[in-house]
Amino acid sequence: MSIPGKDDRLTPYGATNLGMDLGLVDGFFVPNELFFVRSNGPTPEIDPAAWSLDVDGAVERPLSWTLDDLQAMPQVELPAFLECTGNGRSRFEPVAEGTTWKNDAAGNAIWGGVRLRELLNEAGLRDDGLEIVSQGADLETMQRGLPRAVALDPNTLIALRMNGAPLPLAHGFPARLLVPGWAGIASTKWLTRLTVIDRPYVGPFQGELYVIYDADGTAIQPVREMPVKSIIASPAHDERLRTAPNVTGFAWSGYGGIERVETSLDAGATWQEATIVAEAGPFSWVAWEQPLRLGPGSYEILARATDRRGLSQPWTAFWNQKGYFMNAIQRVSFTIER
Amino acid sequence: MSIPGKDDRLTPYGATNLGMDLGLVDGFFVPNELFFVRSNGPTPEIDPAAWSLDVDGAVERPLSWTLDDLQAMPQVELPAFLECTGNGRSRFEPVAEGTTWKNDAAGNAIWGGVRLRELLNEAGLRDDGLEIVSQGADLETMQRGLPRAVALDPNTLIALRMNGAPLPLAHGFPARLLVPGWAGIASTKWLTRLTVIDRPYVGPFQGELYVIYDADGTAIQPVREMPVKSIIASPAHDERLRTAPNVTGFAWSGYGGIERVETSLDAGATWQEATIVAEAGPFSWVAWEQPLRLGPGSYEILARATDRRGLSQPWTAFWNQKGYFMNAIQRVSFTIER
Repeated sequence: MSIPGKDDRLTPYGATNLGMDLGLVDGFFVPNELFFVRSNGPTPEIDPAAWSLDVDGAVERPLSWTLDDLQAMPQVELPAFLECTGNGRSRFEPVAEGTTWKNDAAGNAIWGGVRLRELLNEAGLRDDGLEIVSQGADLETMQRGLPRAVALDPNTLIALRMNGAPLPLAHGFPARLLVPGWAGIASTKWLTRLTVIDRPYVGPFQGELYVIYDADGTAIQPVREMPVKSIIASPAHDERLRTAPNVTGFAWSGYGGIERVETSLDAGATWQEATIVAEAGPFSWVAWEQPLRLGPGSYEILARATDRRGLSQPWTAFWNQKGYFMNAIQRVSFTIER
Repeated sequence: MSIPGKDDRLTPYGATNLGMDLGLVDGFFVPNELFFVRSNGPTPEIDPAAWSLDVDGAVERPLSWTLDDLQAMPQVELPAFLECTGNGRSRFEPVAEGTTWKNDAAGNAIWGGVRLRELLNEAGLRDDGLEIVSQGADLETMQRGLPRAVALDPNTLIALRMNGAPLPLAHGFPARLLVPGWAGIASTKWLTRLTVIDRPYVGPFQGELYVIYDADGTAIQPVREMPVKSIIASPAHDERLRTAPNVTGFAWSGYGGIERVETSLDAGATWQEATIVAEAGPFSWVAWEQPLRLGPGSYEILARATDRRGLSQPWTAFWNQKGYFMNAIQRVSFTIER
């Protein structure tokens, strides 16, 4: 039950998933061996020499690209976080359905590859093309419909690289979609085909799963952008410390760009602005820190991020049956010993 | 306190707003004189001979178009509903802030004009252009930032016509944005300028207003697409009838396309599928009807729409401070007299 090339400090959730506690992250981009893994199906093995990416459906010219073809096209490198829709699910009360992720299903990397719009332009996307259905090699049903507008955005990639290296197998080798800001499920791994359709796509991984169902079971909203969130990486919850900590963490928003991160030691009565110590564009997370001057005692610290649209984190996240979009303000307790 | 050219059966909300009860609608497209009006500021008067639409900011070539220029470009006609974000606000309990719209701030029309992407392509939209800020002539602060991807969608228009006629003054003459599926506020009226910027736009009408605030006052989600909704046009609430009615209504979804409408006479224990009697593409509303065979008595009928993504209407809409997105299942009582 291990995934080749992965750090053994990661937390398994079943055979194909690994959580990454943010306390394990030393730098700003998460090394490939440490990055969390979420795979809904078995991991396929693909022969890159035999592999191709086909584009068909509502296009003027169905086309096919080999890995060499894609590598010969203009390349882009994009820093972006990736987060599972169910990250933090275990924080919902009452318990919601699905894998009980802690705050360990998010990471940040530099994704390299080709703009999806280049392929669609070459194939001649027709005006009746409403969504682009991506097919993963892991499951026949691993399909997602990406709205045309998002597919044509210059930041939507066919990613071939992760932090400068070829995509690791667990992350979709040889090619995956990378839809920055959106829930990880949109970034189809082990990509083999893109089919342009003239209607909204509905299937097991879109419209059935990956929809916000309210408490009555009504599907009320599609899962698209991930909401704004800040997570405290250090100290760990209930950690006992010798001295006052330099609190550190990361913050991100699927709606683009963190404006500020604040912390509170008095349950939200007052907030102090943290220092953003690293950032890399609107789709990357930011790293922040808050040095504390405190004597011995027990404390609880809260962290709250606000993005450049003014969106912020709720005290209580909207409870939904599948436990998606948990972005309530996090609370971490720690003790400074005498 | 009247608006020139408007039907006097409309319901005034202050000096610049008119609600349209859906029971007034005979056909499928709402005549211009009957269409609801929502204006956040005073109605400007614009000399069309002196008017121009300027595109500037993150473009290769700042350009300007006269009304003649726009009319000489390829024209598109698009059937689309338009709905105020606060439509149905009076149904929230407890009362939410803002104009107390009943279910009377939605309509359906054929919008004619030029694709916004044509202008952006001519001006040379730069890759660092993230949002297109639209300026209305009504208020200096009437600005909205439209994400690049949506601006480039072939269904996003500079509308010059409404149901075949030049845009009426109350609806933005000589030109307005038309962002199908999105809350009406996105479709800036009396358009004068489009400025491409490299960051998310935040201002009075976006990020301050037109954001979902939860009960604690946290801004948690931007207002974009309008949720799926069905409204019963006839009978009216508490209407007394001589015979069993043919229940009629309209349904729409900002996420594109109605799949079905159902009604219930037993508070939702069982649902009967209504007949969709007219439709006009994914951005238009549909007209539906449900003939009833009932004897004398008092009844309550519910209507519920489901869109082509599988999204449906909740029993209770998410309460938010500004009272946006009211799409809870509607209940209409009526009596068939002996």
